[in-house]
Order: sequence, then structure tokens, then C-alpha cells
Amino acid sequence: MNELAELHRRAREIADLNGIGGLLLWDQNTMMPPGGASARADQFEALERIQHSRLTDPQLGRILEELAPWAASEDPDSDDVRLIATLKRDHEKAVRVPTDLAAEMSSAAAHAQQAWLEARERSDFARFAPALERILELQQRYIACFDDTGEYAHPYDILLDDYEPGLTTAEIRDIFGVLQQELVPLVSAAAAAGEDGRLFPGQFPVERQKPFAEELLHALGYNAEHWRLDPSVHPFARSMAHTDVRLTTRWEPDDLSMAFYSCLHEFGHGLYEAQMSPSHYRTTLADAAGLGTHESQSRLWENLVGRGKPFCDWVLPVMQRHFGHPFDAWNAGELYRAVNQVRLSLIRIEADETTYNLHIALRFELELAMVEGRLSVADLPDAWDEATHRLLGLETPSIHEGVLQDIHWGAGMIGYFPTYTIGNLMAAQLWQGLRAELPDVDDAIAAGDFGPLREWLRDNIHRHGRKFDSRELLRRATGEDLQVEPFLVYLEDKLLDAGLLTAPVRVPRS
Amino acid sequence: MNELAELHRRAREIADLNGIGGLLLWDQNTMMPPGGASARADQFEALERIQHSRLTDPQLGRILEELAPWAASEDPDSDDVRLIATLKRDHEKAVRVPTDLAAEMSSAAAHAQQAWLEARERSDFARFAPALERILELQQRYIACFDDTGEYAHPYDILLDDYEPGLTTAEIRDIFGVLQQELVPLVSAAAAAGEDGRLFPGQFPVERQKPFAEELLHALGYNAEHWRLDPSVHPFARSMAHTDVRLTTRWEPDDLSMAFYSCLHEFGHGLYEAQMSPSHYRTTLADAAGLGTHESQSRLWENLVGRGKPFCDWVLPVMQRHFGHPFDAWNAGELYRAVNQVRLSLIRIEADETTYNLHIALRFELELAMVEGRLSVADLPDAWDEATHRLLGLETPSIHEGVLQDIHWGAGMIGYFPTYTIGNLMAAQLWQGLRAELPDVDDAIAAGDFGPLREWLRDNIHRHGRKFDSRELLRRATGEDLQVEPFLVYLEDKLLDAGLLTAPVRVPRS
Repeated sequence: MNELAELHRRAREIADLNGIGGLLLWDQNTMMPPGGASARADQFEALERIQHSRLTDPQLGRILEELAPWAASEDPDSDDVRLIATLKRDHEKAVRVPTDLAAEMSSAAAHAQQAWLEARERSDFARFAPALERILELQQRYIACFDDTGEYAHPYDILLDDYEPGLTTAEIRDIFGVLQQELVPLVSAAAAAGEDGRLFPGQFPVERQKPFAEELLHALGYNAEHWRLDPSVHPFARSMAHTDVRLTTRWEPDDLSMAFYSCLHEFGHGLYEAQMSPSHYRTTLADAAGLGTHESQSRLWENLVGRGKPFCDWVLPVMQRHFGHPFDAWNAGELYRAVNQVRLSLIRIEADETTYNLHIALRFELELAMVEGRLSVADLPDAWDEATHRLLGLETPSIHEGVLQDIHWGAGMIGYFPTYTIGNLMAAQLWQGLRAELPDVDDAIAAGDFGPLREWLRDNIHRHGRKFDSRELLRRATGEDLQVEPFLVYLEDKLLDAGLLTAPVRVPRS
Repeated sequence: MNELAELHRRAREIADLNGIGGLLLWDQNTMMPPGGASARADQFEALERIQHSRLTDPQLGRILEELAPWAASEDPDSDDVRLIATLKRDHEKAVRVPTDLAAEMSSAAAHAQQAWLEARERSDFARFAPALERILELQQRYIACFDDTGEYAHPYDILLDDYEPGLTTAEIRDIFGVLQQELVPLVSAAAAAGEDGRLFPGQFPVERQKPFAEELLHALGYNAEHWRLDPSVHPFARSMAHTDVRLTTRWEPDDLSMAFYSCLHEFGHGLYEAQMSPSHYRTTLADAAGLGTHESQSRLWENLVGRGKPFCDWVLPVMQRHFGHPFDAWNAGELYRAVNQVRLSLIRIEADETTYNLHIALRFELELAMVEGRLSVADLPDAWDEATHRLLGLETPSIHEGVLQDIHWGAGMIGYFPTYTIGNLMAAQLWQGLRAELPDVDDAIAAGDFGPLREWLRDNIHRHGRKFDSRELLRRATGEDLQVEPFLVYLEDKLLDAGLLTAPVRVPRS
């Protein structure tokens, strides 16, 4: 099996290059002096050319072909068979894209990311617009590479498939159809009972937030031997390997919830990376099943764990110890109610669980319109504000609370946002599944013991890496396909439980 | 000239990969969680394989050959002709080394660096010994690749040549011969007049050292748009491009001089990188002439500027403002005397200018003995302590003040140390040259205006990058070849001027 050894050698190099790319990206968003941005774009481009040439190497295609009969005779769930399948997919997609285009996309994204940062700092969309136009133009050229495959019903499907293999525009449209219909009445009923302003009233000096976040993260499973936490404009998680996991957060002295919930969220992403099977290290299986699955992990820790009653029971004394006021006058029920209140707000990453998917619906609508050529970059800010008014009933007072709030489009990521909603739905289903298998999980969480939860996630999701796609992983973990209903049931139940809804709003679906 | 365009394309990629390698190294020593070390070694190895394959590509050899007649007809000092010459050198050296060996050396160095950190933390040489043995074994295999060239009179020359092209063991032996003979009486005469203990008595909380270092660096020419400063165990400087320069330092609450002088030192390295000609960016000319030249820049800022009388005039009020005690009771003459005192000490990076080269002589002696097979790793700690006693007259109370103090051998850098002494000698000659051309430089420095100095260095050294080697650069800047005498004259003059020597000790050489 010389071919298999050669395939592993190639997979090793591809995986190492991915790790290096992770570092370039992490550094760009945390440490790099701003003046280094242009050189970083060049470095991304150089790396992308190499990565792309490795994936498109005809020799790789030949090895994969030679291994096909052997793979067909082996256990289809074995690591090597799945490695062959994922590399085949990557190879076949990559060969359609000229290396120059891949390199240009990488460089354009690095430039646009910097333009986004500057535009945001100056609240000036015009600084970002040309970079975004370039991104869109390159995305259209990318889409054109797949025109003749006959595999994609809609051009946007081609973009979706890079983030969540197999996900389609039609599915997303259906999901948002149901969600908008169900969430709008739920939001208006619950928001009426909610309160205004920040989740936690008061000032929280950064030097007191840091030890709090550290205690929180360590309790969840973070350890300094393999993880680190840094500030960034847009919180994110990135790993260079399962042994080197980097989280970022944003410290806001007047808004403790920013660091609090972004730490929980990014921890979920980081744990996924940290708990991938060491046996997949340096293979292309050491990656996420899809970004929907990745997001299910972050949202699970942020919301299903972090805004649950048992977690409130455990965390309130920790908050009281670190901050005193206002928490010393609260009980866990009040915390539970506060962190689940439904508030129509402008910023996606600050949105509550109930309104969150409306923010995604907005982004999906706008990026789809841009991909279909129905919306120009020049008209984007107005379209954003109009959609914000239509979906959330809010005015957008400033552009950095509007179209400049998210880094994604500037980072060349179009077709990414829907994976957030897929993640929310998956998280509710996984939560249902794990609670059935771990009847004592509430007690464990209330006691600050997150071990059983981590282990369930490791066994059912994390360790598999990219061996199975998101659909199959969900099926294996829960026996079910992706559904909207469990998420809606979970939401309404919690709002009722927390006293934020006085009576059921929804008519349950079958 | 398709070949020239193709050569530039290749040089661009090699330069971008160097920038990426710089980031991997910087991150490893500043940010990386310790548990990420093994994955980082894999990433270094993957990168080294690619870099090495780019340099050894037979196609590159053919292009260089095809360009040779054209290059011979052009201005030998033109950028393109020098680019061809440096790439030819790199290609010819690289093709002698198998890619597997280059990759192993890279990975072994990353592993050994981590072992060094751990050994140092635990004061346990045994944790480091196997990694160092592996480094030495690989260095021997590396040396063997050049055995049949007939270009190197001594195996150690092969290692030296990688750090300072053309430097030989014989030259270094001669230099240390003179230096030891001259410095030992100078040290014993001056050390008698010196004082014991830290350079600056007192405690200097890190949160007060940081703004001081920042003000200092900004005055010299550091700017946050393109530079950053972080803590590391072993201070160093690294750039990813001339627009992205990273310095590190070490904050010691009971030793202000550590951060003070390491910031000056690393600034000198950083400025060299920052002031390379933008027209060389993304070519292999955007690199140092040699590490001797690099070190001449750091030592020039640390010592010839930083321990000079005009600098003391300028910096004392800054120190008084940041720290008060003890500096509020000092005058500039006292500072000048304090920072030039000759103290026999164990740690190279804390050594004064006069004793410094004795530390290098010690390392040269030991690494040469290891390369020649006369000294084993097991015997190294004792040999270190014996040489410390012989050269410096000191006992070594702990291993991290002894053989574990420097990262170099653990980072696979053998043949590197002598470049420090070359740098010291070059710095004295450059200082002589620039003072002749800038008669007002003392006044400018005393007024905190470092612009004229930066510009002289830019024009004479920095902008050229790797266009000329260290010898030629020195000749172009000063009209002289490398000499020991100017350094010795400079040293003795300063010790006399500062009142640390009461009468001349040396008999001047011709």
C-alpha cells in the first residue's frame, strides 16, 4: 500500500499548511501591527498558491483513483476510507478553480479585512466598498468555475457547499420561511415582557472581567497548556492543531455580557478543535464536519448550557465573588430571567437566542441578492437598514451597528452566515439527544462539573472531525435529520420557564 | 527577459515563505501555548520542505544559468544582478542538502527549543541533552554535505558561512586571540574600579517599566503602525516584512537594565529590518547582509548610542520622570559611569561591553570543540563552568546562569555566536565612520533627535539589505576592512572618559 502511505504524506503536508494558515489568520486579527496588513495579504496569497497546488496536483488525483477499488472493499466508516473520500472531494473541487483565482481570492480577503477594520473605525462605508466589490467579483468568477458541473441548482449553493457540504439555497429558504413565521410572533410576545438596556447593569472594569473569564473558562475545560485567550475586534476561535487552540473575546467595560457570552461561544468552537481525535492529527480528517456543526458547538455552550437554569445556579456565586454589585442582590432565577430576555437589538453577536436567527435571515437575504446580482454594494447600506426595519422593527443609527458590524463579507466569506442558523437548529437537537442519554447533566452543570457534557460531545461529535458530514453526524448522534421544531420547542419552553412568556404562543407542528 | 520575470516570481514566493517562517518563530517564542510545541515543529518541518524544494528546484538552476551572460553584461551593483548572485549562492548551497535533512533540522530545532525552555524552567540539563545531541548529529550530517566542495578549510567554516557569508574559523581564532589578550588586562583594571550588584539599584514595577520602554522606543523611531513589543524569555527581534517588525524584551522588576538595554538592542535589529529598501520587498535582497552586520546594528544602539554620554544626557530626565528614585538624585555623569561599569558577570546578555566578547570567546571555544568532536554534550556543563572560571574568573552557581542561559544551541544555531563579536567590531568602525560624517550627531542625540543617525544607517547599511555582503558593506560605509583596533580604542577611551579607568592600560597597535 505505497499509495496509501503517499496519500498520508500528502495529507500531512496539507494539514500542516492549514495549521500555518490558521496562525496567519489568528495573528492578523490579534497581534499584527496594522501596517503589516499588506505583507500579510502577500503571505496568504503565497500560502494559498501552495495549498491549492497541493490539492490540485494531478498526482494526487491518480493516487486517489488507484486507491478507489481498495477503498470500495474496506469498511466505509474506516479512517482511511473517509480520508480518501474527503481528499477526493477537496481535490475535485480544487481542480475546477485556477490557482491564480484561488490566490487572488485569498489576497483580496486579507486586504478587504483590513479595509473593513479601517472603515469600521471611521464609520465610513466608502473605505470598505471597493474591497467588497472585488470580493463579490471574485466570488462570481469562483461560481463560474462550477457552472458546468450540473451539481448545483443555484449559484449560491456553490458557496454554501464550501462551508456546509451539501447545504442548498432551497433548504435554507424553507428553514427561514418557517423561522420567520414562528419567531416574529414569539419575539413580539416575549419582547413585550423584556427589559431595555444592557443585560447586566453597571460598569465592569476589564481587569476584573479577565480573572472572571479565566475562572469561567477553566471550569469549562480550558487549560493554559494548550489554549490562549486574547482580545480582538470580532471574537473568534482558531486552532493550529488540537494541541494549540486560540480563543478571542472583546472586553467592554459597560457590557459584561460581551466577554461572558463570547467566551462561552468561542469555548464551544475551541473544544470542538481540542477534542478531535489525536489519531486524525496531520490528516485532513482533523477538521470540522461543516461549519453548521462547528456553530452548533459554540451555540450549545453559549445558549443551551450558558443560558440554562443549572448554569445560572453555578455561575451566579462566581459572578458575585468577582463583581459584587449588582449580582450580590440577585438570585439564580433573576439571572436566568435576565440572560434570556428577548430584546430587539441591532448587533448580531449581542442578540438573544430568540431574535438571533432573524439577524441571519437578514444577512442571507442580502448576500443572496448580491450573488444573484439584484443588489449592488453601493445600495447595500440602505438595503441593510431597510431589512433591519422590516425584520426587527429597528432603525440603524450608525453604520458600525449596521452593515459594518460583521467581518464575514470582508473576509471573503459569503454563504457562511446560514451555517449559524444550521448550528442553532443542530444544537437544540443535540441538546435533546444528550439530555436523554445523560439524565444527570443538569445536576452536574449546577455543580460546575462539565466533564460528562464534554465527554458526550467528544464521543458523539468532536472526535470524528471531518469523518462524517454534518447530516450524518447528527443522524448518528440523535437518530434524526435536521429539523426546526426542536429548536422552537426548546425556545418557547425556556421563555415560559423563565417567566418571559406568560402563555404559549406557538401552535406546535407535527 | 521572461527568465528575469520568472526569477522575480520565484524570489517573491521565497520571500513570502520567509515572512511566514518569521511568524511561526515569533509566535513560538511569544504567544504559543506550550502544548502547541510539537505541532509547531511539524509546521516548521512542512515549511522547510517547501522552502528547500523551492531553492533546490532544478528549474531555478536553469534560469540562473540562462541569466548569467546577461548579468555579466550589466552593472554588477544593480539590484537584478545582485538578486541573481544571492539566489545563485542560496541555490548552490541548498542543492547540496537533501530535503529530508533540511526538514529534520528544522523540526529538531523546534523540538530542542521547547526542551531548552523546559530544562531552563526546571534547571535540569538532562531534559535538554538528548535534543542537543540530535542537533549536533544533524549538524554533522549537514557539514558532510559540503565535504567535497573544497571551499571550506574547516568543518566549522561551513556553519559560520550560513550566518556570515565567507567568515572563517581562522579569522575568528585570530580575532579572539587579540581580544582575549587585550581585554583581560582591561577588564581587570576597570573591574577594580567598578561596583557590584545591579546596574540600577531598586525595584522597578513592570507596569512602570512598560511606559518607559514605550517612550524610549518611540523616541528612537519605533511606531505602533508597524512595530510591536512583547515579552519573551530570551529577547529577540523578528520581522515578517519591513512593514511588520516585532521586538521582544524581558521585564525584570529588580533589574531595569534588562528591559532598558534589550529594548535598545532589539530596536537596532528592528530598525535594520524596517529600513530595508521597499524596492527589495518580496525579493531575496530584503534580508540582512550577514548576522555580523545585523548584530552591529543592535550593538550600535545598545552600546555606542545607549551607553554614550549624549544619550545619558537625554535619557536621564526621562528616567527621572518615569521612576523618580534613585535617578532623581543622579546627574548624567553618574548615569554614564553606572551604565559603563565593568562587572564580571555570568549572563551574556547582561554583560557590559568590555567583558561581552569574553562570553562569546567561551561559546566559540565550546561549540568548536563540539563540532570537532572533542567535547560531548554530557561533558558540556562542566566544560562551560571550567571556561567561565578560566575566562571570567567566576564560579557558576546554577545551570540556568551557565550552559542553559542561551537559546541558540537549542534553536539549532551553531556557528552563530561569533557573529556577535563581528557585530561589536563592525559597530565600532561604523560609529567612527558616521561620527566623521555627522559632526553634530552628539548634539542631536543629547536633544533626543535620532533622525540623522537613523538616516545615516539607512543610507549606508539598512537600505542595501543583502545586496552586498558584510565585508563589502563595511568597506563602502567606512572605506576600511574589519579591524579589532577601533573597538579597543573606543572601549578604552570611554572607560577613561567615564572615570572607570584612571590611566591607559593598552599599548596601541598600529
